[in-house]
Amino acid sequence: MQTYSPVTAEFIEELKQITGPSYVKTDADLLIAYQTDYESDPKLFHMPEAAVAPASAEEISQILKLANRYKVPVTVRSGGTSLADGAIPVCGGLVLLMERLNKILELNEEGMYMTVEAGVRTIDLQNRAKSAGFLYAGDPSSSESSLIGGNLATNAGGLKAVRYGVTRHQVYALEVVTPTGEIVEVGGILKKCSTGYCLEQLIIGSEGTLGVITKVTVKLTPLPPYRFDVLAVYDSPTPALHMVPQLIKAGIEPTSIEYMDNSYVRGCADYCGYENMPGYEKGVYVIITVETYDADDADKKMEQVADICEQSGAVDVLEADDRIWNMRRNCQTSVELISKVFLTDDVVVPVHRIADTIEKIMDIGNAYPFEVKINAHIGDGNLHIVLCKTDMSDEVWEKSVEAFHNEVYAYAYSVGGRLAGEHGIGAKKLRYMEKFTPEGEKHLMRTIKNALDPNNILNPGKILNFHE
Amino acid sequence: MQTYSPVTAEFIEELKQITGPSYVKTDADLLIAYQTDYESDPKLFHMPEAAVAPASAEEISQILKLANRYKVPVTVRSGGTSLADGAIPVCGGLVLLMERLNKILELNEEGMYMTVEAGVRTIDLQNRAKSAGFLYAGDPSSSESSLIGGNLATNAGGLKAVRYGVTRHQVYALEVVTPTGEIVEVGGILKKCSTGYCLEQLIIGSEGTLGVITKVTVKLTPLPPYRFDVLAVYDSPTPALHMVPQLIKAGIEPTSIEYMDNSYVRGCADYCGYENMPGYEKGVYVIITVETYDADDADKKMEQVADICEQSGAVDVLEADDRIWNMRRNCQTSVELISKVFLTDDVVVPVHRIADTIEKIMDIGNAYPFEVKINAHIGDGNLHIVLCKTDMSDEVWEKSVEAFHNEVYAYAYSVGGRLAGEHGIGAKKLRYMEKFTPEGEKHLMRTIKNALDPNNILNPGKILNFHE
Repeated sequence: MQTYSPVTAEFIEELKQITGPSYVKTDADLLIAYQTDYESDPKLFHMPEAAVAPASAEEISQILKLANRYKVPVTVRSGGTSLADGAIPVCGGLVLLMERLNKILELNEEGMYMTVEAGVRTIDLQNRAKSAGFLYAGDPSSSESSLIGGNLATNAGGLKAVRYGVTRHQVYALEVVTPTGEIVEVGGILKKCSTGYCLEQLIIGSEGTLGVITKVTVKLTPLPPYRFDVLAVYDSPTPALHMVPQLIKAGIEPTSIEYMDNSYVRGCADYCGYENMPGYEKGVYVIITVETYDADDADKKMEQVADICEQSGAVDVLEADDRIWNMRRNCQTSVELISKVFLTDDVVVPVHRIADTIEKIMDIGNAYPFEVKINAHIGDGNLHIVLCKTDMSDEVWEKSVEAFHNEVYAYAYSVGGRLAGEHGIGAKKLRYMEKFTPEGEKHLMRTIKNALDPNNILNPGKILNFHE
Repeated sequence: MQTYSPVTAEFIEELKQITGPSYVKTDADLLIAYQTDYESDPKLFHMPEAAVAPASAEEISQILKLANRYKVPVTVRSGGTSLADGAIPVCGGLVLLMERLNKILELNEEGMYMTVEAGVRTIDLQNRAKSAGFLYAGDPSSSESSLIGGNLATNAGGLKAVRYGVTRHQVYALEVVTPTGEIVEVGGILKKCSTGYCLEQLIIGSEGTLGVITKVTVKLTPLPPYRFDVLAVYDSPTPALHMVPQLIKAGIEPTSIEYMDNSYVRGCADYCGYENMPGYEKGVYVIITVETYDADDADKKMEQVADICEQSGAVDVLEADDRIWNMRRNCQTSVELISKVFLTDDVVVPVHRIADTIEKIMDIGNAYPFEVKINAHIGDGNLHIVLCKTDMSDEVWEKSVEAFHNEVYAYAYSVGGRLAGEHGIGAKKLRYMEKFTPEGEKHLMRTIKNALDPNNILNPGKILNFHE
């Protein structure tokens, strides 16, 4: 087991010399903001010993060199919206705040790319692109509060992945400060590249364990001017789930396909105060968005989508208006009303296995004392299983959650799935990652991590136990 | 500098025990086939000391463990179609032949994926997909002779990359034997994944230096039933080159955009024996392919393409029939007629810099004693610069090629380009890779390579000098 040194007065002194004293925080009053992210269970919070808000990659480089010298662990905090305890400093030490790296550096219309510092909010990036007639296709549900660097670190998914892919598919290049403090630019504004190792994709999704992302160049695409949103209501999950592969094979190229089970249909309608919503009693929702560059194409695809939904057994097919999207967006919030402590999971499986996976999970859930709520980015096999603690005792909650997860993950892996589709492993799923990942793959990850971060300074306690 | 041990009788004996004696070759008569790939200059050939044709990942694992024990270098040979000396055993030692791993293992129509051994020919994979109504979108020009494992190792590009991306975008998962002999599966049949490091993308494009790819699962897409091919003839390169960004911004999503300069228009027409081809005297060609899932969409896009070409100054816009594609396909072969020794380069630049890059290269070329021929996958910024030695002396050839390349590469890097868009670095561009790659990036690559291949056994002398 790795041991670290505590943060000392000397360390703080050196830190202040790097950033200036006003950007170093050591008061418990201030540090308390960094003890959690979107984690709702206080048992999983962890206080850092200090926090620092650097202004540049150069300062981050110096901070990491300092941390290596003192053997102080560093946890990078981006927007703090992790659902996997990714921003919680589980080994204590220093929290590195990315908020001051917040500049949009360039929008190149001819080259269709945008370069920003890692601390820019996702929505600010999206809006800047939109104002120039472009789409930045990365679109996590947390876009209003997450920062783009965190999107890269977790390889965030979101609502547009069916058509455009996830965050790693939106990135041309990035600047990263390695765990030992070197500033390196990797990737390029290139459609093809066969020039050395694909380091940018290794860094993306490594949850801050292989480096601190400081600058990002993302792809822009022309904004598709036409769009329609269809709501298909089914009276049971099975036909809804089996419709998805047909939609994909038809060449419609939907932007998103979202699924809400009946508990969400009811919960979100209630939360939003909408009355007489279709399918309220026992319906499940599939919301389909299609974007096109041509009006006729949109009309034709709308007919195709309606046909496929009806033939697959939808009891109602209508336009998904703002109310429907508002319900979808409030899935998470509607849960907070029911239970202060809850758990959001994001298992991913091959798209053609989503139907049997959801059926299996509902079946597994029947044996447990909590309600199992499911919404899903169904077009990309990514499901959010939400468990609510409500008034359960800690002991019952923890034991039953553990047992439920072990059953669900074992099934997911048996059909080629993985623990996390878009939230990352963080600290929360580390023990499952250790359990379900084959030895060979863990060995490869450890070899790379240990080579790049010999003191295990950066984001320890995340993904795997790298140093044992 | 790394030193290796020669292949000994004992080593051969152990090798024969792994694969059976008939799959181990040591006769010079047989080994001569492996001294080169698509390299045409005999000065760059290198004889291996032995070759072995294993049947499975298990045998490859044993071979790599043996090679580590004896410190014998191993060069992986896939289809042997490298244009970057990627399959030449520049340090001698053992050549590992992938030809026996040639089974198509599964085509899953529901899941839209296909799993094959790494030694399956690219065209066999493409055809098998097609026969089931699917497209495998990887399409290097060498598809008839290259093997899929080699496509992954070099991150091969080819003709469909504008729309579908390059080989790395077609891959769900792969099995790899690491340099130290562990068999590991990485990736998954997943649209989203945020579960540990993205190892599959690190292996893809690493040119066999980080592992031997033994099995591959690729994505399939529905075969678009409609297609059209347009030939736009321009009377000079500039307007042709400036048309490309307009085509991309219009949301037409072309499958490919190919460029042939006038030397190719003439050379290929002559080679194919076609008379009275449009633009033969001084024209350059841009060939545009668009595929759609809908007939009306195809008609509409065809009009759009024609409009954009005409407005950008094309002197002739017509259907690109089989003759045009036959000319495009014979670019390489037409050169072989002119010069036994020639050099194909594949510099890549940002798409919006392709016009000035080609203009600059033509300008640079004027000062040199060889003809500079350019064709390009213009829609993805990837250009093939061909230099012909004809009857030049070795000395003049080598000196002028070196000077020309240094000028061209310096320009390419100055606009954000890289040495290779799709061929890889191999042995051929190693010295340029050392020169043009920033220290920080080289350091990251070396750290990873040294950690995974501590004896530098696998494909030494490729990409970089990893052990110095």
